[in-house]
Amino acid sequence: MVKRTSLKDADCPVARSLDAIGDWWSLLIIRDAFDGLRRFGEFQKNLGVAKGILATRLRHLVDLGILNTAPASDGSAYQEYVVTKKGRDLFLVIVSLRQWGEDYCFEAGAAHSTLMENQGGQPVGRLALRSKTGKVLTSLETSVRKIAGPAPKRPRDAAAKPPGGKIFGRRSM
Amino acid sequence: MVKRTSLKDADCPVARSLDAIGDWWSLLIIRDAFDGLRRFGEFQKNLGVAKGILATRLRHLVDLGILNTAPASDGSAYQEYVVTKKGRDLFLVIVSLRQWGEDYCFEAGAAHSTLMENQGGQPVGRLALRSKTGKVLTSLETSVRKIAGPAPKRPRDAAAKPPGGKIFGRRSM
Repeated sequence: MVKRTSLKDADCPVARSLDAIGDWWSLLIIRDAFDGLRRFGEFQKNLGVAKGILATRLRHLVDLGILNTAPASDGSAYQEYVVTKKGRDLFLVIVSLRQWGEDYCFEAGAAHSTLMENQGGQPVGRLALRSKTGKVLTSLETSVRKIAGPAPKRPRDAAAKPPGGKIFGRRSM
Repeated sequence: MVKRTSLKDADCPVARSLDAIGDWWSLLIIRDAFDGLRRFGEFQKNLGVAKGILATRLRHLVDLGILNTAPASDGSAYQEYVVTKKGRDLFLVIVSLRQWGEDYCFEAGAAHSTLMENQGGQPVGRLALRSKTGKVLTSLETSVRKIAGPAPKRPRDAAAKPPGGKIFGRRSM
């Protein structure tokens, strides 16, 4: 995949996240790990992915601290992959992809897997972004405050900017 | 990018979403569109991406109905890309990537862009998944209820399963 090498140094947390986990194999592996898969062969079978690709992605996720390796829980010689706190905190990324997919990627009434609350067995509610005071916010009610200039290398310039930088790109959609 | 061709027919909404928009250029374009970018040259400059890659991704996003093309709002000959409702509904995917990136992809105290509420100018709150009764749910409190078997082709088999299919993969993390 063609990749802009500077994404990991971007000021934008979206870009840095995508740099780390922004390819679908990584996200599908994380999804499967949430679903309880732990072994190389389990991921390989469920994803239908070539072993080389899977091995690379698993190593990358371990290097990032999203998965840890552990001896097999049944005492066998297998190695298992276990989701760390950092990996579990990707839960809402997976849920947001799930809910958009439910809305737009199936014909009306078509069967699909569903995320359920363990206690009570009901489907979960909708993800929501809220203001600090609890109001649900749409994309049209928010804007990104960007960092102005190459702040890390020029701390005095950065200090001369308004706290947190200038607001760019207020949305007009 | 190596891709499993059957993702778009998967029973899992996460997989179908990733099949549609699961590469970082698409998601970065959508992020930029949320930030108000509309023209090919604006995306190209901001992303530093090759024109061919950008053209392919923009066409794909238009084909998917995530972006629409429109005449330039200033009456010039330029074409603009405008986010549709389907595209705007990817907002929480972008926000979830942003919040995870804020948590894990920056040194403590390092400057990064921030999502602000327009009204009042405060940073937005944290995304949260809740139960139907309003309780915040972690990954450990949910499970995916998968579709059992190739249901679409074997309706009688599917009908013999519990309503909505069997629950697999209860998490043990």
